[in-house]
Amino acid sequence: MKLYDGGKAPNPRRTRIFLAEKGIAVPTEQIDIMKQEHKTAEFTARNPLQRVPVLVLDDGTCISESIAICRYFEALRPEPPLFGQGALEAAMVEMWNRRAELNFLFIVAHAFRHLHPAMKELEVPQVPEWGEVNKPRAVDFLRIIDRELADREFIAGDRYTVADITAMVGYDFLKVAKIAVPDELTHVRRWHAAVSARPSASA
Amino acid sequence: MKLYDGGKAPNPRRTRIFLAEKGIAVPTEQIDIMKQEHKTAEFTARNPLQRVPVLVLDDGTCISESIAICRYFEALRPEPPLFGQGALEAAMVEMWNRRAELNFLFIVAHAFRHLHPAMKELEVPQVPEWGEVNKPRAVDFLRIIDRELADREFIAGDRYTVADITAMVGYDFLKVAKIAVPDELTHVRRWHAAVSARPSASA
Repeated sequence: MKLYDGGKAPNPRRTRIFLAEKGIAVPTEQIDIMKQEHKTAEFTARNPLQRVPVLVLDDGTCISESIAICRYFEALRPEPPLFGQGALEAAMVEMWNRRAELNFLFIVAHAFRHLHPAMKELEVPQVPEWGEVNKPRAVDFLRIIDRELADREFIAGDRYTVADITAMVGYDFLKVAKIAVPDELTHVRRWHAAVSARPSASA
Repeated sequence: MKLYDGGKAPNPRRTRIFLAEKGIAVPTEQIDIMKQEHKTAEFTARNPLQRVPVLVLDDGTCISESIAICRYFEALRPEPPLFGQGALEAAMVEMWNRRAELNFLFIVAHAFRHLHPAMKELEVPQVPEWGEVNKPRAVDFLRIIDRELADREFIAGDRYTVADITAMVGYDFLKVAKIAVPDELTHVRRWHAAVSARPSASA
């Protein structure tokens, strides 16, 4: 088994944090996106969509998409449960993880990729107007979860789940996307300090 | 239990097709997005992100996000399995469903929402340049799955799964987004005819 990882990029980081929470170590090779190593013929054979991370199993089967890799490990090692247990909790975790992706992490990523000069050769073409549209939307989502976090400890409920991983990675990505967190969002700040203090956050 | 549904919109349709494949009937109320019924205070209390569909359980718990609702029903009624069985198949279905969302259905939706005059009051602001950028990307994905479908019957493997639902809904959305399917993609066309012939497709 081998994990093709992607350094600082947010999606590979989600998988690394997930593995750290599970206490799973996987042999890893770094793919340098800035050098476009994810676009070589060799890497494209592993993932035709040219994205990291990719997990290659011993029989050569390739699993891409961060969350698909996380689900694979959740099935192999169910404890601690990071996708919820039982029909309802699993649905709530799926709901919050998707909200945190579609309305936050991916939004922040659009703002970064379409506006940052360093992304000029990776995001072709950059559409700066689209980047600007997304900046306030990331803050809109933080306001929504600030209200939610007034009543509970974590994004999807009373325990840490993959939804916290997605939201934390999105939050940490705000800085490079030049999006400021309003001071009054105290519940979000409390939550972010708590999840950032976990050993997995440095993975 | 009640499902707040959203008519012709692609995400609510995914959930309806899923329920039809499972043989599950749920009392339904239509929310008219064109009349902005998803933005009322009453609906916002069910989903602060103002999206359909939303499933409301008998105790008032609200589950939103199409795929979260689908997973809830998969847990309640596992047969036929539409999210895969076992660690590897579940990971492959998750991978393909996400690819079909992120690189196809959502791409087609961006092209439609940012370019179609009917979306002017729902997608604010429309960024036509962003809409145009996405049109060829939807076709790029079809070329990738055409190669995959040369060797197997369905998107994620040898059986019909939620990934076929997502990809079919995306495919049917191409017309309104004014994106043409190249004639040479014969495997995709064969697959689309097959999944469209299932009774669930008219749900």
